[in-house]
Amino acid sequence: MKKLINGVDTILTESLDGLVAAHSDILTLGGEHKFVRRKALKPGKVALISGGGSGHEPLHAGLVGAGMLDAACPGQVFTSPTPDQMLAAAEAVDGGAGVLLIVKNYEGDVMNFEMAAEMMAGPVERVLVNDDVAVEDSTYTTGRRGVAGTLVVEKVVGAAAEQGRGLGELKALGDRVNRATRSMGVALTSCTVPAAGKPMFAIGEDEMEFGVGIHGEPGRRRDKLMSADAIAEEICGAIAADFGAIANKPALLFVNGFGATPAMELYLMYNAARRLFEQSGARIVRSLVGNYVTSLDMAGCSITLSLLDDETTRLWDEPVHTAALRW
Amino acid sequence: MKKLINGVDTILTESLDGLVAAHSDILTLGGEHKFVRRKALKPGKVALISGGGSGHEPLHAGLVGAGMLDAACPGQVFTSPTPDQMLAAAEAVDGGAGVLLIVKNYEGDVMNFEMAAEMMAGPVERVLVNDDVAVEDSTYTTGRRGVAGTLVVEKVVGAAAEQGRGLGELKALGDRVNRATRSMGVALTSCTVPAAGKPMFAIGEDEMEFGVGIHGEPGRRRDKLMSADAIAEEICGAIAADFGAIANKPALLFVNGFGATPAMELYLMYNAARRLFEQSGARIVRSLVGNYVTSLDMAGCSITLSLLDDETTRLWDEPVHTAALRW
Repeated sequence: MKKLINGVDTILTESLDGLVAAHSDILTLGGEHKFVRRKALKPGKVALISGGGSGHEPLHAGLVGAGMLDAACPGQVFTSPTPDQMLAAAEAVDGGAGVLLIVKNYEGDVMNFEMAAEMMAGPVERVLVNDDVAVEDSTYTTGRRGVAGTLVVEKVVGAAAEQGRGLGELKALGDRVNRATRSMGVALTSCTVPAAGKPMFAIGEDEMEFGVGIHGEPGRRRDKLMSADAIAEEICGAIAADFGAIANKPALLFVNGFGATPAMELYLMYNAARRLFEQSGARIVRSLVGNYVTSLDMAGCSITLSLLDDETTRLWDEPVHTAALRW
Repeated sequence: MKKLINGVDTILTESLDGLVAAHSDILTLGGEHKFVRRKALKPGKVALISGGGSGHEPLHAGLVGAGMLDAACPGQVFTSPTPDQMLAAAEAVDGGAGVLLIVKNYEGDVMNFEMAAEMMAGPVERVLVNDDVAVEDSTYTTGRRGVAGTLVVEKVVGAAAEQGRGLGELKALGDRVNRATRSMGVALTSCTVPAAGKPMFAIGEDEMEFGVGIHGEPGRRRDKLMSADAIAEEICGAIAADFGAIANKPALLFVNGFGATPAMELYLMYNAARRLFEQSGARIVRSLVGNYVTSLDMAGCSITLSLLDDETTRLWDEPVHTAALRW
């Protein structure tokens, strides 16, 4: 295992210390590293809280800040955060307007956020993200997995929360964005959880995993490595088929790196995916390319298409000031 | 070789097409993919042009835009761009106030930018970046190599150019920032140039290359993989020693990923480096962490310390609107 670390027990805390020190204008760390929160809270605003296993950075802590999340709870690598973390985060950032939890659909996350919600004092709602069209059920998931589309939900709902909208409206908006968002990924390599010390799965020198999950969960099938165009064709085809119809629809195209794939290849994949979606009649009006929802040191990427309307386009464009997303 | 590509001959053009399509509000492509330029030029401004071999993305094309570069010339992977590309870029973006070339110190780049400068019609100056303290001469370089510190030069000089400063003043500023900036890197893996199809160098499962160049050039020595703290100690020590004195100096700390190292590890390295520089008395007043000056799919990172003064701090903080850097 080749990693820039001091020991497997301190990776998470040392990394969080670095994140908060590097972005001390934006972020503060909760006690015992339970959560990362927005330094300057906005009074009267619904608090947006997300979280999940670590290893997907910058999701979620790198997306805390004005116009996006109020707090993020990082679990150990590929392990759900505890209800205790979520409660501590809610106590720190809930200004009385209620709490909206944004939860990726994994059994551990769903269960722990549910337990935390039951213990919270004030009003609380939940948006469940399940944008991955690759498989119906998976290793850690009943139903579809929540993957890169989570960033889109967090950005759009974050902008709306910043405008002072109420909890019920934000929950409905989040559900709407989730329904309008579909993703699928491909892995060229496995990834190594530090505590395990070896790759999560074996994959041949000429193989790829189609529809892989962000924890290395199996996807649709193992296949021989194909060209970027052929990969994009299969992924974009699956997404378009799942939507049913995308012709004439304005959309955000988001090509997300899993952590070890160079920008050069991500932009090449963007180029291929854009051409294919446009051939299907979609209008790509917004774009995002980079490593945002990663799987440690996995090579590969996911493609996300999120259908936009006038309102969600405006909310996407609203200013955001986080460690990883800023405009 | 596992890459998301269609063929080795079209990687660069397809990737540039994707970059410019994804950031069509910022970027335009020159004919025959000779350069990437800022879409909206600012009249009366000195034109800032950089470039170099591809494979270091987002450097340089991802740093074209308001407050930074006016154009970037991408060579083939790890290959200098041609004088012809630089001339075409200068013709496209020089509004009459002159051209400042920002050149990383590699023999091919230096020679080709020099030939281009001789053929340019208007006034032209050059800033040579050589921030890498690892070795004195290297595979493609006489003298020190230009590495991640290039981004700092481009940002600070870019902001000053945006304010309308003259060519001579910008050249002096760029030279000053270069002198105040030192870097050193470490590689945990090699990288694979697509056309070669195999790793540039062999490295053992338990080895690292100290002081590696951004083209996989040998550094100071090959060693057994050490802890993040021990690596940071050697790199930060080399940088501090090269400066002579950093006590009480305000500085920018920039931890740069080489392409395949997860954000979690980069922030952990940032945490280690910051502690060490602060122990040496430096005051870390600005920070940057991420993949900015990469080496294809290499795992590892570099650490850059750039000493700031009031003026360069203000220029670093000025707004920037590029694909990769935006605030």
